[in-house]
Amino acid sequence: MATRTGRPARSKSAPGTTKAATRTTRARDSLHVFRAEAPESSANPLRAGTRLERIPEPCILVIFGATGDLAQRKILPAAYNLSRAGLLPPGSAVLGFSRRPLSDEAYRDMARKAIDEHSRSKLEEGIWDDFVQGIHYLQGEFGEAADFRELEEELERIDAERGTLGNRLYYLATPPSAYADIVSNLGRVGLDRQRQGWARIVIEKPFGHDLASAGQLNDTVMRVFDESQVYRIDHYLGKETVRNLMVFRFGNGIFEPLWNRRYVDHVQITVGEDLGVEGRGEFYEQAGASRDILQNHMLQLLSLVAMEPPIAFEADALRDEKVRVLRAIDPAWTEARVRGQVVRAQYAPGWSADHKVPGYRQEPEVDPNSNVETFVALKLEVQNWRWADVPFYLRTGKRLPKRATEIAIQFKQPPLMLFRDSTTDPEPNLMAMRIQPDEGILLRFAAKVPELGLDVRSVNMDFTYGTSFMKDAPEAYETLILDAMLGDASLFTRADEVEAAWGIISPVIDQWHDWDEKAASSAAGSDDGDQEGTLGSVGDPGLCFYDAGTWGPDSADKLIEHDGRRWRRL
Amino acid sequence: MATRTGRPARSKSAPGTTKAATRTTRARDSLHVFRAEAPESSANPLRAGTRLERIPEPCILVIFGATGDLAQRKILPAAYNLSRAGLLPPGSAVLGFSRRPLSDEAYRDMARKAIDEHSRSKLEEGIWDDFVQGIHYLQGEFGEAADFRELEEELERIDAERGTLGNRLYYLATPPSAYADIVSNLGRVGLDRQRQGWARIVIEKPFGHDLASAGQLNDTVMRVFDESQVYRIDHYLGKETVRNLMVFRFGNGIFEPLWNRRYVDHVQITVGEDLGVEGRGEFYEQAGASRDILQNHMLQLLSLVAMEPPIAFEADALRDEKVRVLRAIDPAWTEARVRGQVVRAQYAPGWSADHKVPGYRQEPEVDPNSNVETFVALKLEVQNWRWADVPFYLRTGKRLPKRATEIAIQFKQPPLMLFRDSTTDPEPNLMAMRIQPDEGILLRFAAKVPELGLDVRSVNMDFTYGTSFMKDAPEAYETLILDAMLGDASLFTRADEVEAAWGIISPVIDQWHDWDEKAASSAAGSDDGDQEGTLGSVGDPGLCFYDAGTWGPDSADKLIEHDGRRWRRL
Repeated sequence: MATRTGRPARSKSAPGTTKAATRTTRARDSLHVFRAEAPESSANPLRAGTRLERIPEPCILVIFGATGDLAQRKILPAAYNLSRAGLLPPGSAVLGFSRRPLSDEAYRDMARKAIDEHSRSKLEEGIWDDFVQGIHYLQGEFGEAADFRELEEELERIDAERGTLGNRLYYLATPPSAYADIVSNLGRVGLDRQRQGWARIVIEKPFGHDLASAGQLNDTVMRVFDESQVYRIDHYLGKETVRNLMVFRFGNGIFEPLWNRRYVDHVQITVGEDLGVEGRGEFYEQAGASRDILQNHMLQLLSLVAMEPPIAFEADALRDEKVRVLRAIDPAWTEARVRGQVVRAQYAPGWSADHKVPGYRQEPEVDPNSNVETFVALKLEVQNWRWADVPFYLRTGKRLPKRATEIAIQFKQPPLMLFRDSTTDPEPNLMAMRIQPDEGILLRFAAKVPELGLDVRSVNMDFTYGTSFMKDAPEAYETLILDAMLGDASLFTRADEVEAAWGIISPVIDQWHDWDEKAASSAAGSDDGDQEGTLGSVGDPGLCFYDAGTWGPDSADKLIEHDGRRWRRL
Repeated sequence: MATRTGRPARSKSAPGTTKAATRTTRARDSLHVFRAEAPESSANPLRAGTRLERIPEPCILVIFGATGDLAQRKILPAAYNLSRAGLLPPGSAVLGFSRRPLSDEAYRDMARKAIDEHSRSKLEEGIWDDFVQGIHYLQGEFGEAADFRELEEELERIDAERGTLGNRLYYLATPPSAYADIVSNLGRVGLDRQRQGWARIVIEKPFGHDLASAGQLNDTVMRVFDESQVYRIDHYLGKETVRNLMVFRFGNGIFEPLWNRRYVDHVQITVGEDLGVEGRGEFYEQAGASRDILQNHMLQLLSLVAMEPPIAFEADALRDEKVRVLRAIDPAWTEARVRGQVVRAQYAPGWSADHKVPGYRQEPEVDPNSNVETFVALKLEVQNWRWADVPFYLRTGKRLPKRATEIAIQFKQPPLMLFRDSTTDPEPNLMAMRIQPDEGILLRFAAKVPELGLDVRSVNMDFTYGTSFMKDAPEAYETLILDAMLGDASLFTRADEVEAAWGIISPVIDQWHDWDEKAASSAAGSDDGDQEGTLGSVGDPGLCFYDAGTWGPDSADKLIEHDGRRWRRL
């Protein structure tokens, strides 16, 4: 379209110029294969050259924990769908590595079953026939260096057979306890650097369970790998609407001017789950909502919504800005601040849809006296020039009335209420970005009621992602595995980011543990604890309860209502 | 809703305080009747007190030209619908005044037929039975003072009979040529001021046919009436979406910050008609698109979209701001400026829907050599702090492909094209306000295509007035007649506004006439006219032609494309 932009028009006939060139320079260890004039049905990877599609080099995807849940449900189906979309070059291979003794054939059957069951697209025989040729399996112990020497041989054999050029993507789909062994052994046998080709490692969350352990994990990994080889995956960042959030903010000229303390009253981020712990009581007892959702997903959403515009859409430029947001949040949590600005809660028996459900303490594998939080709500402030005095309210919980993730920007009232005699008070403007379900964007504004007179009412403009594009969005894992193969770390979490996020959340959890211990000892000992009034008593673990199937405890409402605001009804 | 506004909450229990009080003071000659707890179905007049509805005092609506087209099609149905909505108090009356001899009964039959045919709601017998009681007719000549003395007697008789308290709303629904006689005679017999009650006069457009005649008309009217009694009606301002434009701009906090030269690239205003002159050739030969649409409707739309926020929603505050916009448009039209920035065009034979239609010069009552424009497109600049360098492109025409009125705000590209490697170039943001048909608001923004990669595409959010409120909007005439009865002149044009608008348009029309005359004399005389190149030749009337059923001549496209922009496709 011939619009005037005040800058010279870019030449459409020179694909892959400036920006693509920069990219190639940065991702030193990645060679880009361009394919001209991709058919309409296939997709364009991140930062594709104009009318060209970037395909990664062939590589071996090495899955540690190849028989586990994550491999079956997410990784294998994602690899299959990438292959189906024509985004994996011929020769690409998958090597499963696990303790269980399996033949290549048996693992191929297992993979087929997994794809049959979990892929977003139906398994097509023609595509499968090609894909399955590249699947191999190796039995081994994560702690055994000898098994890793065997791994090395197997990888070289596959290189020779399939032409994978020495490129390896190691995927840690094991429990975190195995990470250190795997990383060390990869280093020990020299699989961390390739004489030819590249080696990258994908690490699944949790990245530690507190600031100290996250630091240790980073140290372990970085003794072997360089940060540029490390891809810490948070699948939330692969979701289409999360990625659209960046396009929405920076691809449009009209939102960014409003995106600051002058116009924004506050921001709400909600990650609601309707499920309970679903048989994962043992895991959840060690996690809680803060570790499971808040420290990673929610702080990532907060970073993306609050960050300054990056200088480019590249991994480090983007992550630099995200870290700056986290660093602007005060990590000094006094007891008073935790008691006043954080709500810790646990679900009690209640209802989910139309059936009765037990409380958290009644779930299997859960301590009947557990103080682990299944809900957390808190108020944060991003203390920088853009956001000073604009509170960010975050809440997440299990057994809420519905599954819903949303970021809502609540704007201020217009400066002069010209229509103040309207019989209805229009609500202030709001922009809500729904991450799931029904991904979309809602804009609430005031309009005149079409009647005689000047009554004003709030109405919504709605944009629904699915119906607007009529396309099936790719799974987050497809996006992210492809990015890792391409050497694009934009949507992966950097070490300093992980630690900055823990730096905010760890002290809160530490306070809680402190209270739990005092409560335990005060219950055990005499009751000589002095009362501290509004801050809760010594011996008060500060845990509230909410009925399953409600939007959390009253104290979560009070947290925000104290400031004259209200949680969105989702 | 408990939202934080940074200002003390208004008490809902004290209706009609501050603002209503101010209002009452200003509209000295109007007493407000409040009715508590109006039923949901009825409407709230302008600036109604909270949960109260303002009803005008009973008055006599005196229609001059009572048997004419406007009275039948618009005024009588509007009065009926106001009565039906319960907004006219009992006792309200209508007095028709025209040359044709008719009895009250005959005029009542005529009124019933008019309402039957033209009302937006079906005639209901119960409501009609009440309404018809107040309808009277008086035969008279507009130029005869004696007939106005009779009018005075008749009005007093009705006052006594119906309790209309001396309140009169005179409605000039005659050809403009009769205005001076009617106004003078109203003054002569003292009907311009009431000892008791109020007298107001509604004047239909055109308000003059150029700057000089508009000034004369204003002088004539103001020799008799005070400006505060005069209601110049432009029914465009009564349209719901035009009124919503003000709510949209000033009732929301998020649009006003963008509404200026920093973010807006340009503004387009289109008033398209699919019809031709439809047997009104004689009228149109005297008018043309500039007088018929541009000088009034379009400059009104421009004023509303460009004005500064008024200090209050009151007639003078609002009109002060609108006049300031018009005054910021340079009225000095050199020949070069007219040739370069204004397109004058006329429709040639072509197609309307699927039938062949004649050109303008072939229409009945039209001079076969007529140079009257049926299309005009021009570029204006509002030279103030807010809009400097932001062009406003206006176009209107008959026999275009469709009937469509729209104001489009085209925003600038974001300052940094972070997604410049997207395979599709998203168009810059756009906000389009559709005035007719399908009143609504469209917001165009860039979103990520839900595919692997970072392709960005333009998508629309749409708000449609009708479907959102599920209400039948009142006719513009209902809104405006009610406002006039209530003494609210916000949506009527003030004398200085009319003259400022003519001040912009008159010089253009004068240039054209000048060219026509030169063309005529150069055709008649020898061809010794010297060529003036790009400015058009002496003797060139600067008239282009476009085929009926197209969006105007090529030169209209060139006007905007010259600046690297494009007309919206509607």
